[in-house]
Amino acid sequence: GPGEVVIVGAGPGDPELLTLKAMRELQAADVIVYDRLVTPAILELARREARRVHVGKEGHGASCRQDDINALIVDLALAGERVVRLKGGDPAIFGRTGEEVAACREAGVPVRVVPGITTASAAAASLNASLTHRDHAQRVQFITAHDRHGDLPESLNLAALADPLATTVVYMGRRTASKLATRMVESGLPSDTPVVAISNVSRDDQDSVHSTIGNVARGIDLPEDG
Amino acid sequence: GPGEVVIVGAGPGDPELLTLKAMRELQAADVIVYDRLVTPAILELARREARRVHVGKEGHGASCRQDDINALIVDLALAGERVVRLKGGDPAIFGRTGEEVAACREAGVPVRVVPGITTASAAAASLNASLTHRDHAQRVQFITAHDRHGDLPESLNLAALADPLATTVVYMGRRTASKLATRMVESGLPSDTPVVAISNVSRDDQDSVHSTIGNVARGIDLPEDG
Repeated sequence: GPGEVVIVGAGPGDPELLTLKAMRELQAADVIVYDRLVTPAILELARREARRVHVGKEGHGASCRQDDINALIVDLALAGERVVRLKGGDPAIFGRTGEEVAACREAGVPVRVVPGITTASAAAASLNASLTHRDHAQRVQFITAHDRHGDLPESLNLAALADPLATTVVYMGRRTASKLATRMVESGLPSDTPVVAISNVSRDDQDSVHSTIGNVARGIDLPEDG
Repeated sequence: GPGEVVIVGAGPGDPELLTLKAMRELQAADVIVYDRLVTPAILELARREARRVHVGKEGHGASCRQDDINALIVDLALAGERVVRLKGGDPAIFGRTGEEVAACREAGVPVRVVPGITTASAAAASLNASLTHRDHAQRVQFITAHDRHGDLPESLNLAALADPLATTVVYMGRRTASKLATRMVESGLPSDTPVVAISNVSRDDQDSVHSTIGNVARGIDLPEDG
């Protein structure tokens, strides 16, 4: 009979941020198909006999071969394997899960999704901070600052992003940070709005820089390349 | 010496959605101070000897006694207890974590935060769905539809909420769903925009209704009270 595909969120990197359910799926897998963003310490938690297949996908970066990944997980499941498709963070947030689910359904392969800790939650926790506050930030929004070419997306809703009553979390924001900050300030966000730039969230080498949107727009206070 | 406060996200209800880190904190706690939204199955995972204190807080509802909760966790920690402050979902998202962290800091009590699976992630996973899609939803935003009196907040950014290129997740949305949907349609969101209303996410009694924003505005297709 056919196997199945379980799309599992690995969280941001610290193995302790896996869910109990994700852990169980890793220990029941025949094959684990994982991204660049999944850490070695997480892969070590999987069943020893499970094959590990690195697909080297970089989120919304230019190197995506999403069609190849879709075909790989479908073919493995059709061959009877229990496939864990392991993604950094939460599969529902900038993870291209919809495309992988659609590919499985078209091929008649059973598919399930196990949520993960999204990087925004782990980043806030590491700062002892909230993303919302009933008096100051009644809305929180997540965007990615990469389109399929690695550039700042054209279709940003700048009115939504310039709202001083919202917290904005930018995923994969390093390369276009200064350009995005400039647009946000031009759209009315006060230039003294606080910014925290965090890299390698939840990992031993997590680093953060506290700044303002005005300074980021001027190209200062950015984290170094990790 | 003083104890400490660890603010821990319990996720949406299924104990399997706890993180390994949250589990460890539960098993090391002297006292667990928990909300209405935390399920009995999760409390069972705590150390047998730990005292359980139910503070009955209902998110942003009218029954909040946030000052009392702040004083309770601070006093317990000052008495030397290892306190786990257990919250439904993720502490950073509509959890009033900022106020509890501030109270601990003012009292000189060590405080840490452990992230949890937010309900939006678990809801999307249960539907095998993404909250983002590179072609259709480049922004995802979370709001709560309750102000401190249980009414729809006055200061909603309706332009941001009516954006057809965003996914909007409404926490605690049942009571004001029709009113909010009406405002979103009046602000330009197409009335055939799909809506899924989900209650008791990740629990055995999870229920969902698939509808459109137009129908919700007309007061039909709402989930029943759970």
